[in-house]
Amino acid sequence: MPELRKDPIVGRWVIISTERGKRPSEFEFTQPTLKTGFCPFCPGNEAKTPAEVLAYRKNGGGPNSAGWHVRVVPNKYPALKVEGELNREGDGVYDKMNGVGAHEVIIESPLHADTLSRLSHGQIEEVLWAYRDRIIDLKKDARIRYILIFKNHGEAAGATLEHTHSQLIALPIIPKRVAEELDGALEYYNFKERCVFCDIIRQEVMQGIRVVSENRDFIAMTPYAPKSPFEIWILPKVHESNFENAQKHHYESLSMIFSDVLKRLDKVLNYPPYNFILHAAPIRDAASQYYHWHFELIPKLTKVAGFEWGSGFYINSTPPEEAAKFLREAKV
Amino acid sequence: MPELRKDPIVGRWVIISTERGKRPSEFEFTQPTLKTGFCPFCPGNEAKTPAEVLAYRKNGGGPNSAGWHVRVVPNKYPALKVEGELNREGDGVYDKMNGVGAHEVIIESPLHADTLSRLSHGQIEEVLWAYRDRIIDLKKDARIRYILIFKNHGEAAGATLEHTHSQLIALPIIPKRVAEELDGALEYYNFKERCVFCDIIRQEVMQGIRVVSENRDFIAMTPYAPKSPFEIWILPKVHESNFENAQKHHYESLSMIFSDVLKRLDKVLNYPPYNFILHAAPIRDAASQYYHWHFELIPKLTKVAGFEWGSGFYINSTPPEEAAKFLREAKV
Repeated sequence: MPELRKDPIVGRWVIISTERGKRPSEFEFTQPTLKTGFCPFCPGNEAKTPAEVLAYRKNGGGPNSAGWHVRVVPNKYPALKVEGELNREGDGVYDKMNGVGAHEVIIESPLHADTLSRLSHGQIEEVLWAYRDRIIDLKKDARIRYILIFKNHGEAAGATLEHTHSQLIALPIIPKRVAEELDGALEYYNFKERCVFCDIIRQEVMQGIRVVSENRDFIAMTPYAPKSPFEIWILPKVHESNFENAQKHHYESLSMIFSDVLKRLDKVLNYPPYNFILHAAPIRDAASQYYHWHFELIPKLTKVAGFEWGSGFYINSTPPEEAAKFLREAKV
Repeated sequence: MPELRKDPIVGRWVIISTERGKRPSEFEFTQPTLKTGFCPFCPGNEAKTPAEVLAYRKNGGGPNSAGWHVRVVPNKYPALKVEGELNREGDGVYDKMNGVGAHEVIIESPLHADTLSRLSHGQIEEVLWAYRDRIIDLKKDARIRYILIFKNHGEAAGATLEHTHSQLIALPIIPKRVAEELDGALEYYNFKERCVFCDIIRQEVMQGIRVVSENRDFIAMTPYAPKSPFEIWILPKVHESNFENAQKHHYESLSMIFSDVLKRLDKVLNYPPYNFILHAAPIRDAASQYYHWHFELIPKLTKVAGFEWGSGFYINSTPPEEAAKFLREAKV
């Protein structure tokens, strides 16, 4: 019997079609591949990107020269622009504003053939610090209300350049899905006086059936009502609303579990394309009591049918308990 | 300068990246193609589907035999099942219910090589009547709260069988996106005491810049803040919350504008894959004053990046005014 499950935060229902539970090998997708050719993200080509806004260099070296191990540059074709005042304007029944914001690229390694799952813990930790440092810097801009950090890995997941990188979009608005999560988490908090994510973590640690991986500070789990097969959330065990406020040693723990989860995903699903998104509270809102930052990771295994996209109603062919078991038992 | 635009109903913001306004020929997608092979939807193979729940036969003929021109059958691999009581159950912080509902297939033509855009007005009207008749019948089931009607055209849009068909999913819950639309429309209604869709239609008819096509009873337009390039909405000009309550002559007018819009889409975008979804009020809620049924049609031109899917924040590379102009000026 298929099962309808409700996401405890946003209240979205999904169908978990237990009877046709898809095994990892049954998904057909386009594996990310490496082509050769000119790459603006490779060391030596620093002049081909806009001037860097951040770079970590262990052995010195000037800005916009080689020698970096993580480098952040503005997107050459930004969806939003840093310049200008924020003007809100009406047009009859409609509302608009000019596209003020930032769009940056975090180049995660100097090596073209690297993928995030192959990087050392130390290198992944540096990438996480780059996320944090850019958030800290962009928070100073009073026009910015939300910072979206995400990664598209593989062409099928929307990546246009193959050299391993993440992206940052700083917005003058709060994205819809974030607002929904905040609303849902606040409603739960008002009712229970507890963080819904903290309650989820407690239950998941106790039940164990959806746990993928765990360390002292973090848990990786498949959510109870996932939109997508093999969707994974990585959450800090201690309550904190914003990524940039995490304790120093948390970035180390996070790099370890992130690396572990990506290796399990590669092993079980055979190097799938994927997306991940950092979910955190808006930078200027007082959501600290009821929101809990985390990463959501979605392997790109299926074509999203338009009706799912349009209705917000999802059919998931792999129960999260089965997905978690495959991932948990993978030898990495 | 890119522009941020707000959807007046659900309040979602999208970036319209005016500077890299993509022309129709710049999109790369997989065109729907016809393969040969056995087809369970072709006349003569009626025994290969579950027994029909509706069929229109001009010249008589028994159930589940050839001679039909529109035929509706239960999905052979349903996401939901008709049998059983609706049981709601908790699991700690989580909620679930059993997957009670219906999942049906509307076979739009007996001819395997037909597409909806090539059907006559008369045949499209029959398809619309089949939607209506199935809704009327399923409304009797007290467990059902929402009926989702949609079409995936082409493999890239999620179609698994190529013989032209739509689908119906009857649900014991209200899908998230529908609930959001209802909430947004109600909020507008409470504030203005007018239907937001009626206001949109008035403004669009007056401005003309986003109109694709129009007849006495319907308007086809590109929405002000579309998630997707070349997204099109088809709305009845007269206020009505539910598709099945439309006047008889509206099905005829709708078949005309539907056919016209699909032909324009084929012409401008060169036979793209697409999805459409019927948006209507829940069957058992009193939304008649503030909700306005319509179809939303989305050509599948781009890969949805995971961050868009996960954040509810969209970047659209074609301003809807440009898309509407291409579609409006197409010779069909």
